[in-house]
Amino acid sequence: MSVKTTGFFDPSELKRFCRALLEKVNIPPKDAELIAESLVRANLRGVDSHGVSRMAIYIERLKKGLVNPRPEIAILQQTPAMALVDGDNGCGQVVAKMAMELAMTKARETGVSLVGIRNSTHFGAAAFFSTMALERDMIGIALANSYATVAPWGSRVAYFGTNPLSVAVPTGRELPVVLDMATSVAAWGKIILAAQKGEAIPAGWAIDSDGEITTDAARALQGALMPFGGPKGSGISLIIDVLAGILTGAGYGPYVGDLYKSLDRPQNVGQMVGVIDISRFSDVNEFKNRMDKVIREIKSLPRAKGVSEILLPGEIEIRNQERREREGIPLPPTTVEELRKLSAEYGVPWEDAVKRN
Amino acid sequence: MSVKTTGFFDPSELKRFCRALLEKVNIPPKDAELIAESLVRANLRGVDSHGVSRMAIYIERLKKGLVNPRPEIAILQQTPAMALVDGDNGCGQVVAKMAMELAMTKARETGVSLVGIRNSTHFGAAAFFSTMALERDMIGIALANSYATVAPWGSRVAYFGTNPLSVAVPTGRELPVVLDMATSVAAWGKIILAAQKGEAIPAGWAIDSDGEITTDAARALQGALMPFGGPKGSGISLIIDVLAGILTGAGYGPYVGDLYKSLDRPQNVGQMVGVIDISRFSDVNEFKNRMDKVIREIKSLPRAKGVSEILLPGEIEIRNQERREREGIPLPPTTVEELRKLSAEYGVPWEDAVKRN
Repeated sequence: MSVKTTGFFDPSELKRFCRALLEKVNIPPKDAELIAESLVRANLRGVDSHGVSRMAIYIERLKKGLVNPRPEIAILQQTPAMALVDGDNGCGQVVAKMAMELAMTKARETGVSLVGIRNSTHFGAAAFFSTMALERDMIGIALANSYATVAPWGSRVAYFGTNPLSVAVPTGRELPVVLDMATSVAAWGKIILAAQKGEAIPAGWAIDSDGEITTDAARALQGALMPFGGPKGSGISLIIDVLAGILTGAGYGPYVGDLYKSLDRPQNVGQMVGVIDISRFSDVNEFKNRMDKVIREIKSLPRAKGVSEILLPGEIEIRNQERREREGIPLPPTTVEELRKLSAEYGVPWEDAVKRN
Repeated sequence: MSVKTTGFFDPSELKRFCRALLEKVNIPPKDAELIAESLVRANLRGVDSHGVSRMAIYIERLKKGLVNPRPEIAILQQTPAMALVDGDNGCGQVVAKMAMELAMTKARETGVSLVGIRNSTHFGAAAFFSTMALERDMIGIALANSYATVAPWGSRVAYFGTNPLSVAVPTGRELPVVLDMATSVAAWGKIILAAQKGEAIPAGWAIDSDGEITTDAARALQGALMPFGGPKGSGISLIIDVLAGILTGAGYGPYVGDLYKSLDRPQNVGQMVGVIDISRFSDVNEFKNRMDKVIREIKSLPRAKGVSEILLPGEIEIRNQERREREGIPLPPTTVEELRKLSAEYGVPWEDAVKRN
């Protein structure tokens, strides 16, 4: 029997594999389903940095007791429009989904809501939560802080996390607008990958430990990522940490535990989700018609040189998803190797996940 | 008697001059005071693009009946946490101040609030409104769309406005964090100024009408500004237009009237203000202590090469204000000439504004 070590993998089988693994470390089936869905959907959307490559560290942190498989998520404070939630060090996906559902319920009553989260952990791709609002004709927002990898503008050492921001906006016939971005120029995972391959990185992504712009990925790993958009992006990264971390009483700046290196303590990630009920501001169909019009107009604008198509936020990801649902999810050998090791360690058959070439 | 045509001007006298002018075009004294305060404070903060250089076009639009000097501002929809306001084409400062006060009152009840505004006009610097929240120990947010000058990422023609974003965060002993930024790389006013002086602009600020990056300011004026931060900043600019314009039923994209060129119709600018009551999430003093700690830590980080000091959002503006309150406000000859013409036209003595060298 030959076991594939790379290639294209079946999304459903991959999800079943992850779910079974998570159940082995005491995650309840419903939560295991959610976490597996979050990771595999990120892979489907082409956001491989937030996909099943995270399984190994999730399992390790669960096994070490740094993530609580059965958290008692508590609402510490609330009004009809806001809440502060303590995630009890549960999996970020489980905590943030509960917070988003609470935010949607509140926004249905009051039109607008914010739910802050402390004592959370890595929650995967932020768009997983912002897009929950779409089917209810609501605008969804998700912010998180993360462990320090980004140098505040003017400095040369990491202090901010990549502090992602996602906003999902419903549309009519056009694809929904789904902004989902790190507030660094490039993702940390891309630097790691380039260093592994010995490839150069573009100037402007990162600085070395002397604060010099570097194209050497290995030197960048000793340095820090640059915030996107110079001082403006650096300011937005700070504001995200204010909302997700400083306001909620979670970790902030360098006090958020490193997912990979802080193996002696919970991460205490801070997150913030928000919802706007469109119907309180506008007729929903009229809003969607205006969104469609804007999207069509922008896509029809004269293009800059060398640009074959103008893309709106979230468009690439939906195309990736359509293609990968047909073709399967490509995984690199390092990820496959990690998953096979987990398969052996926890007795969850890996071969079942391999259905396509 | 010699009349100064350039130099440093007394803030109080300049404000008195603007207020008197605005009253001449039928603005009630209280509102004239507010608008004059907004413009002169922008000058004090060094944000000259949003200062008294706007007086001439404000007066012209008021005189033409495109801005309503005595608007009946109406609340079209509301819940305890949100409202939709119709500005009745009043001066943006008057409308947004009312909206921000409403948002603060609501946030005191519900912890969180958003107030959207349609049928508004240019409101000056966004920080004027976000910072209103500071003395109440609240986080203030202000967004606006504006007339098309910015090319969406991948296109080569203007569709978005410079769509500013401001967030003000209270602190303890340190200066408050006041982010106030256009979502373009550079302000439109800087391109105009460079073209007037025949100076080059940095590559990356703007493209010409062929979509090529240009350093020729005159060519840039025929083209468009670039969004800050590439596709990410372009996405944020779109989201600001969604919240301020598409959601509120105001103008959006190219349908916002050009402050200078659309002299046949109201602008219908869209704005959105939001407030978070810190006390609902955290002990206020503990929050402020954490903010102070973060600010001190960031300012103490090892600096990047060539950087003499790490600056937080809003820090430069407060220093400008301290200096200009002492030294007076420097105005360029073009602005002085405009104000002198208004002085002659409306019979408001200009010499009184000139108190310092």
